[in-house]
Amino acid sequence: MSGKTTRDHIVEEADQLFYQRGYEHTSFSDIAETMQISRGNFYYHFRTKDEILDAVLGYRLANTRAMLDRWEAEGGHPADRIRSFIHILITNRAKIMLYGCPVGSLCNELAKLDHGAQAQANEIFTLFRGWLRRQFALLGRKADADALAMHLLARSQGVATLANAFRDEGFIRREAEQMCNWLDAQCTGKRRTK
Amino acid sequence: MSGKTTRDHIVEEADQLFYQRGYEHTSFSDIAETMQISRGNFYYHFRTKDEILDAVLGYRLANTRAMLDRWEAEGGHPADRIRSFIHILITNRAKIMLYGCPVGSLCNELAKLDHGAQAQANEIFTLFRGWLRRQFALLGRKADADALAMHLLARSQGVATLANAFRDEGFIRREAEQMCNWLDAQCTGKRRTK
Repeated sequence: MSGKTTRDHIVEEADQLFYQRGYEHTSFSDIAETMQISRGNFYYHFRTKDEILDAVLGYRLANTRAMLDRWEAEGGHPADRIRSFIHILITNRAKIMLYGCPVGSLCNELAKLDHGAQAQANEIFTLFRGWLRRQFALLGRKADADALAMHLLARSQGVATLANAFRDEGFIRREAEQMCNWLDAQCTGKRRTK
Repeated sequence: MSGKTTRDHIVEEADQLFYQRGYEHTSFSDIAETMQISRGNFYYHFRTKDEILDAVLGYRLANTRAMLDRWEAEGGHPADRIRSFIHILITNRAKIMLYGCPVGSLCNELAKLDHGAQAQANEIFTLFRGWLRRQFALLGRKADADALAMHLLARSQGVATLANAFRDEGFIRREAEQMCNWLDAQCTGKRRTK
């Protein structure tokens, strides 16, 4: 159990259910039922699905932050770090083909529900955006670093959506390679080929 | 009422509700209640939400086909037709910022629900893909026409997802312009700048 609390286990379980089935389709009872604990114990930790969502979003944000910190520490050159970002499409391809991107799909679902947690969910995108922006600035592209960050985020999101619809691993690999080539072109110091 | 039947009205209403609120979050009763008709009349047309979904997907497919035929007839040059595709991001920007792309978001939701209508929903993507592939082939890019079609579809989807999260119209316009520039680069007959 590696020091994890019951609350941690509930959050991890809900995180997967929200991702795999969608937030709306996952009921409070669904989450409670997958846990091998008493109802009383479950309710002690969470009283509503919104409370669980709040905890899941905090969990995802913390995980994303830790991942970005790791890429930053491991990648000596900003371009290597950005390549780590591009490669999550390949690393997570099996789940992406089944369920799409966990960030994009949840943000879109919460927007349709006009849910109060939209801003919190979008923070994960903002985290990626700020991190990518910083890497592009370090590459000497300070003036358009934010536009480059948004461009790459969008390409990554689009690949996830179509990979999910067509279940096409070759497509993911091809697009990831093109993104890396695009990145190389940005590193040459020239204005980007639009 | 311009010759529309009650059934047409139900399908149009459901189409909007599925898009704006999501399929799962829209109940059979929600749709029935927005129509100013008796329950008996409503049930005469549809008995389940799945039946309504089936009709909505048929409606969307027919609308998409008509739109692509129109672009084909109006655009003398294949590049003009592809520009029409890129520009739907701008034409539909207000709804995209609120709800994302109707095609991408429904396909993703049905994938998470592991819904039987997934293949039917994906047909709309397949329609766009085949149409774009044909235009790229006409541009003399037969060998990689499908990859170019998928690339452009993905970019368009990614822009929709991020425009929805950040509600940023300037971003949509910037990315649409970049896609048009990318298209111009494909038209020069050179291999694409990856």
